[in-house]
Amino acid sequence: MARTATIIGGGVIGGGWAARFLLNGWNVQVFDPDPQAERKINAVLANARLALPALSDVPMPPEGRLTFHDTIGEAVEGSEYVQESVLERIDLKKKVYAQLQQANPGVLIGSSTSGFKASDLQEGSPAPHNIIVAHPFNPVYLLPLSEVSGSPKNQPEVVAKTVQIMKDIGMFPLVLKEEIDAFIGNRFLEAVWREALWMLVDGVATTSEIDDAIRMGFGLRWGQMGLFETYRVAGGEAGMRHFMAQFGPALKWPWTKLMDVPEFNEALVDLVATQSDAQSGAYGIRELERIRDQNLIGFLRALKDRNWGAGKVLRAHDEARAVAFHEATDTGPKSQPLVMSHCQVLPGWIDYNGHMTESRYYFANSESVDAFLRLIGAGMEYVAGGHSYYSAETHIRHLGEAKLGDRLRGELQIISADEKRFRSFVRLMKGDECVATVEQLCLHVDMASGKTSPAAPDVWANLKAIADAHADLPLPEGAGRAVGHKK
Amino acid sequence: MARTATIIGGGVIGGGWAARFLLNGWNVQVFDPDPQAERKINAVLANARLALPALSDVPMPPEGRLTFHDTIGEAVEGSEYVQESVLERIDLKKKVYAQLQQANPGVLIGSSTSGFKASDLQEGSPAPHNIIVAHPFNPVYLLPLSEVSGSPKNQPEVVAKTVQIMKDIGMFPLVLKEEIDAFIGNRFLEAVWREALWMLVDGVATTSEIDDAIRMGFGLRWGQMGLFETYRVAGGEAGMRHFMAQFGPALKWPWTKLMDVPEFNEALVDLVATQSDAQSGAYGIRELERIRDQNLIGFLRALKDRNWGAGKVLRAHDEARAVAFHEATDTGPKSQPLVMSHCQVLPGWIDYNGHMTESRYYFANSESVDAFLRLIGAGMEYVAGGHSYYSAETHIRHLGEAKLGDRLRGELQIISADEKRFRSFVRLMKGDECVATVEQLCLHVDMASGKTSPAAPDVWANLKAIADAHADLPLPEGAGRAVGHKK
Repeated sequence: MARTATIIGGGVIGGGWAARFLLNGWNVQVFDPDPQAERKINAVLANARLALPALSDVPMPPEGRLTFHDTIGEAVEGSEYVQESVLERIDLKKKVYAQLQQANPGVLIGSSTSGFKASDLQEGSPAPHNIIVAHPFNPVYLLPLSEVSGSPKNQPEVVAKTVQIMKDIGMFPLVLKEEIDAFIGNRFLEAVWREALWMLVDGVATTSEIDDAIRMGFGLRWGQMGLFETYRVAGGEAGMRHFMAQFGPALKWPWTKLMDVPEFNEALVDLVATQSDAQSGAYGIRELERIRDQNLIGFLRALKDRNWGAGKVLRAHDEARAVAFHEATDTGPKSQPLVMSHCQVLPGWIDYNGHMTESRYYFANSESVDAFLRLIGAGMEYVAGGHSYYSAETHIRHLGEAKLGDRLRGELQIISADEKRFRSFVRLMKGDECVATVEQLCLHVDMASGKTSPAAPDVWANLKAIADAHADLPLPEGAGRAVGHKK
Repeated sequence: MARTATIIGGGVIGGGWAARFLLNGWNVQVFDPDPQAERKINAVLANARLALPALSDVPMPPEGRLTFHDTIGEAVEGSEYVQESVLERIDLKKKVYAQLQQANPGVLIGSSTSGFKASDLQEGSPAPHNIIVAHPFNPVYLLPLSEVSGSPKNQPEVVAKTVQIMKDIGMFPLVLKEEIDAFIGNRFLEAVWREALWMLVDGVATTSEIDDAIRMGFGLRWGQMGLFETYRVAGGEAGMRHFMAQFGPALKWPWTKLMDVPEFNEALVDLVATQSDAQSGAYGIRELERIRDQNLIGFLRALKDRNWGAGKVLRAHDEARAVAFHEATDTGPKSQPLVMSHCQVLPGWIDYNGHMTESRYYFANSESVDAFLRLIGAGMEYVAGGHSYYSAETHIRHLGEAKLGDRLRGELQIISADEKRFRSFVRLMKGDECVATVEQLCLHVDMASGKTSPAAPDVWANLKAIADAHADLPLPEGAGRAVGHKK
């Protein structure tokens, strides 16, 4: 049974929230009086569909249902959670909350506000405890951070419920201990923004040079360790105290012009807009969004490979969903080929033709065989004990084409097996179409001696049971072929 | 003939510079009176050897020679460029420059200073025009940014020479138009550092929470687009002017405490160090460095795949070195198998056993066959014209093991060919050892109809010439095999 979220305000931020909920299987009910809202949300959603699934290594749940509503009351009906992303006007926000709470008195409301504190937002509400800040970062469907900030009126259960909903849609909820204006992220962004505007106004650097100074240097560090851990490393073997001793005195150097604010006028807007056009005008905004998303996918997948930072959040989200998926999946009777893997063709997997690059077919086979090895008890723990199955040879037939976003299923049949080896035959299926077959001989190896050896008795028993069940299956078409032989 | 650089000061920064020069084939002459200098530089170099080559897709040049010297005069002998990375004391720096210029009057000196202007550093020098700022970011061997900042005394030729040396070692030189304290990067870092210390002192957030606020959110954005381009995208279809109109007024909101500096005392150092221990103390500094390097490799390779930001710098550096490499490489007479590819086993290519993951053997074959297709005139332009060779089937024998850092060479032999197809046999060689063979049938396809078709006459002529030359070669051992057949 799908859960339901309400989205009030469908701009870049509201649309990003809508996409994150929908792609995680929630139904989403939108209210936005802008006649363009449906078009705008669908544009964000189109980008998100190309991006968020690329971070997942378990199948995505079926997408939720997206509906648009004419009144706030309708939009909040039957909803478990509201995300409010309207303009930064406190009177407007309070009016929205009043209507939400009138129509659905118990509903939990999270605000995307960049600066208002929860206690400001709660003023005058009959149920202030149900209003809290959940502040995201653009693009909401890719960046995991949600700053969760409540007032003393929010009971711990309300904070905990907000945290859990954020986790359920794959986010990283960071609960603030104290209420402060602008939370943590925007305090930094404001500091940097002021400094950057001064450099422009003083003619020291252009927007393009400033961006390069960030993305060629410390920007790369911050995406994976942040500020303090980076400096801890910079301190070297002597650690954080040494770093502080070296860098502390710099606090007194008058480098910065930070509190002195440049005048915000037409000339400043012109300066920034003109330089920004020169820097990025060759790309449309939608194109820049897709470039940004692809870059972020690359960063996030790199962190996921390494189980670090935002990559840890992705892994935890996968694990939570994998349990649900496996509970819902029946691998079928053993006398049928076993469905051993599911994958989706990711942006990094395609070649210049737009097709899945050929080595990825082998990769998809490896995923299937690895899952089979886990099934018979020869997974990571078995390898840690000094034994493993090594691939000896492999034959691949390319029969069709997989493209970006296609979902592939690996169906594995055992052709033959004994104590020291097995021959597997994997059909890579796109729906009912077989896009490739992979036949493989795997040898059981004692890793210390590097020689083949009999598998452990329980592993062999598991393997033999499946091989026996598969013995009645017909030999697959294409098995036993050599390259270039006639059919 | 290898070029020579001098490194004065062998800490984390000096060691990073030494590694970058050495791995790019320069000889490096070090002066550092610290008796631990040799050990420290070798530790940085060991990390760099695992990291920098992982960014390269062309073979690295032979590593330069590293020598340590007892005097500044000896260290600068025969050197083309000096990188000075001593403590931030202007008197010390000036003393070093005097000795360098006495021993090697014409040498170009770049300073790693974080804050002094070139005109400060040049005071009192007999050759001020040869002293300039080249300010890097840690880890120097991975992050491309070098802020190049001169005074009016540095002639354009000196700036141009510094820029060229930075490019020669794969960096991104950012030339500052105006001399300012702390250049661009450190102005931002100081602003953020002050704000972060206030949050700690005020008890609003811990070091760990602050780092998460950065690396789960805007830190990921900054590594690929920086500040202004990110905001341009956030402005949506209305662009930068719209963003300024929305965000401009926030300049007047009193969120920040930036100019008000927290007192630097023992209590502050304790607070930071204690929280940092709680956050990161489970890892040693060397371990954190390796984690950081692996993360940065992931980010940088993602950007390189997408030819964006720092990834563009890597590609340009590859291209410059590929030309030199191909000029020095002889592919041999055509009656021998053709050496079609070189690759190095990258960190992302290995499995949990530490071996190259099996699908990467197929990938290495694809690199060889793609290079062969370019050789016969069937590269990207040919594909753009609507024709391509598609892989039909592939047989792989795993004969040995490739591990992290191993260099592999793809030697390609044509077994048979006609107008519509060819059979290739690639030996993947690690030195003299054949770690895998890949036999493949490729079909020439008219992409519009999706059917096989004869190759263009010039492509077929090129292919036939090689196939004829290879006809006299013996059929390779293992060609024509099916999976599991006896020898």
